[in-house]
Amino acid sequence: SRSINLAVIPGDGIGQEVVAEGLKVLSAVLPQDVKLETEEYDFGARRYHATGETLTDADLDALKRHDAILLGAIGDPSVPSGVLERGFLLKLRFAFDHHVNLRPSKLLPGVATPLAGEPEIDFVVVREGTEGPYTGNGGTIRKGTEHEVATEVSVNTAFGVERVVRDAFARAQARPRKKLALIHKNNVLTFAGHLWTNIFNKVAEEFPEVTTEYMHVDAATIYLVTQPERFDVIVTDNLFGDIVTDLAAAVSGGIGVAASGNINPSGDFPSMFEPVHGSAPDIAGQGKADPTATVLSVALLLRHLGYEAEAARIDDAVAADLSERTGKPARSTSEIGDALAVRVAG
Amino acid sequence: SRSINLAVIPGDGIGQEVVAEGLKVLSAVLPQDVKLETEEYDFGARRYHATGETLTDADLDALKRHDAILLGAIGDPSVPSGVLERGFLLKLRFAFDHHVNLRPSKLLPGVATPLAGEPEIDFVVVREGTEGPYTGNGGTIRKGTEHEVATEVSVNTAFGVERVVRDAFARAQARPRKKLALIHKNNVLTFAGHLWTNIFNKVAEEFPEVTTEYMHVDAATIYLVTQPERFDVIVTDNLFGDIVTDLAAAVSGGIGVAASGNINPSGDFPSMFEPVHGSAPDIAGQGKADPTATVLSVALLLRHLGYEAEAARIDDAVAADLSERTGKPARSTSEIGDALAVRVAG
Ligand SMILES: CC(C)[C@H](C(=O)O)[C@@H](O)C(=O)O
Ligand SMILES: CC(C)[C@H](C(=O)O)[C@@H](O)C(=O)O
Repeated sequence: SRSINLAVIPGDGIGQEVVAEGLKVLSAVLPQDVKLETEEYDFGARRYHATGETLTDADLDALKRHDAILLGAIGDPSVPSGVLERGFLLKLRFAFDHHVNLRPSKLLPGVATPLAGEPEIDFVVVREGTEGPYTGNGGTIRKGTEHEVATEVSVNTAFGVERVVRDAFARAQARPRKKLALIHKNNVLTFAGHLWTNIFNKVAEEFPEVTTEYMHVDAATIYLVTQPERFDVIVTDNLFGDIVTDLAAAVSGGIGVAASGNINPSGDFPSMFEPVHGSAPDIAGQGKADPTATVLSVALLLRHLGYEAEAARIDDAVAADLSERTGKPARSTSEIGDALAVRVAG
Repeated sequence: SRSINLAVIPGDGIGQEVVAEGLKVLSAVLPQDVKLETEEYDFGARRYHATGETLTDADLDALKRHDAILLGAIGDPSVPSGVLERGFLLKLRFAFDHHVNLRPSKLLPGVATPLAGEPEIDFVVVREGTEGPYTGNGGTIRKGTEHEVATEVSVNTAFGVERVVRDAFARAQARPRKKLALIHKNNVLTFAGHLWTNIFNKVAEEFPEVTTEYMHVDAATIYLVTQPERFDVIVTDNLFGDIVTDLAAAVSGGIGVAASGNINPSGDFPSMFEPVHGSAPDIAGQGKADPTATVLSVALLLRHLGYEAEAARIDDAVAADLSERTGKPARSTSEIGDALAVRVAG
């Protein structure tokens, strides 16, 4: 009989609330014969304040034993900027080699967008997750003086770029439109830019059916608001991916519905799924958070583990729920979760 | 009697056409007693193909003798990506220490925006122009092999950050709303991020009337499309500035109307003014380019040289011209220039 052994990291702020709904929908969608085991971990601001720890080697060993990880949100104003981001979120992505950071953007019927007209938005960003400016390379000299110099080193390897570019081509190949755009800034960041561009062009030869284009990151932000229908699959570096996926989320219904997967396609380590939004401490504990992004992250998780039919049921339930929202009174976090659980079970 | 000794760099593609209209409007707006001298330089793709040169020491010596520089656009698909960008545009910004890259965004009445509703957009981005990931530091080893490693080093100095932050605070102080936002990614790029944040907070103490906020660059892209009215002055690093100003241009009427100044406030070297758009080779030579961004760059140039009244006349003429466009047939590049020249003279 089948089973899913899930690590659950509610985290900070609204993380607790949205993860509870994600698990509710997960339980409702899974067939009877699939045994779901969950183990909760207390990472985040509370643990950091209590112990000074963000993510220890023992933690990594424990997490490694799960099939996948569901994360709510990590981050709190009481913790200095960077401590939990570098010490937990990025540490985990790097430790588990989550090199495919998958972020779909789809504007569903009935969902509000800040863009005029009725743009058709349905693309997925494959963001590199283990290299680029995110490696933590760099440093500071003469800190706090008028002669301080701070550097950040973007590290890019043929190995790291090729595997994520290849993943993106395979995803483009599997989609009806078969289009792939590389986003970089190869006219300024010429060292990294040429590496990305050359590998992209080389791998393209193996995928003759995929139509490719290149665009600079600055131009890409223009297209994302003026011609978002242009995009099918995007592949890009870690930092550009961070930026364009927030913008992509904003134009395709907001970060309330933006899901993401931090994927290790090899399966050597569990992949992690999380909403793109943060911990939103201003609305935490009030039942105001929209759990939809977390529920959609559960769909990505199921798809990753091979439960395609169940993932599709969640996607459909979310689409139906969103399409009926206009004009209705706002619901609480758990009311939305309940409604989605009913839909996926039904 | 007063005089302006201007270096003119038409450049590639539509650069020639739009610069001609910029000069037309400049001549029309200047009082009789101001002697305008212009010298044209042939930088860009043609010169590169003919001589292999992009910008020599002799060129820099010649340019240095002018009061200011007006640039059309540089770049052509026949030149490998990066050659003219690094070899001309960035070389000039660095050689003349253009550390204040000024990019105003104002949505004028009657101008189309991709955003729904009628957002009020009126802010200015102060982009650092001589540091960050633009320094060209970094390199490649094992080029072209499967073991290639390419690095890009973002270099940030207290000197460089403080002077641009101070410039931005002074600009915010001089505006009615007196708001300044720092955009960075200090939770991930912690070395550079802390330098920027600490200096920003330190300089803020000298400007108690200025309201400040900090936001991550990814969140900033969301606000630029959902709450652009939130912004008054933005200060940010070279790469983040490149990205957010293209997005800002897109939401506030398009790059057809986005002007910029590469300013050296010390006056040790001439400042350079240019439209944000590129050389647009697809429409070059057809009289289809909108010269408005170049004309607005001329206004920034005049303001920089102390001709405030003339700069304001250009801004007003452009606003009037844009407000009357809706429903009218498209005009050629020179027709728009003519109309603006008539307005500023009248
Ligand atoms: C919180 C931060 C470290 C993170 C990132 O920059 O990757 C977030 O913005 C994201 O996009 O998941
Ligand atoms: C052409 C390129 C070097 C330049 C930049 O990245 O600064 C351009 O995008 C700009 O914004 O002026």
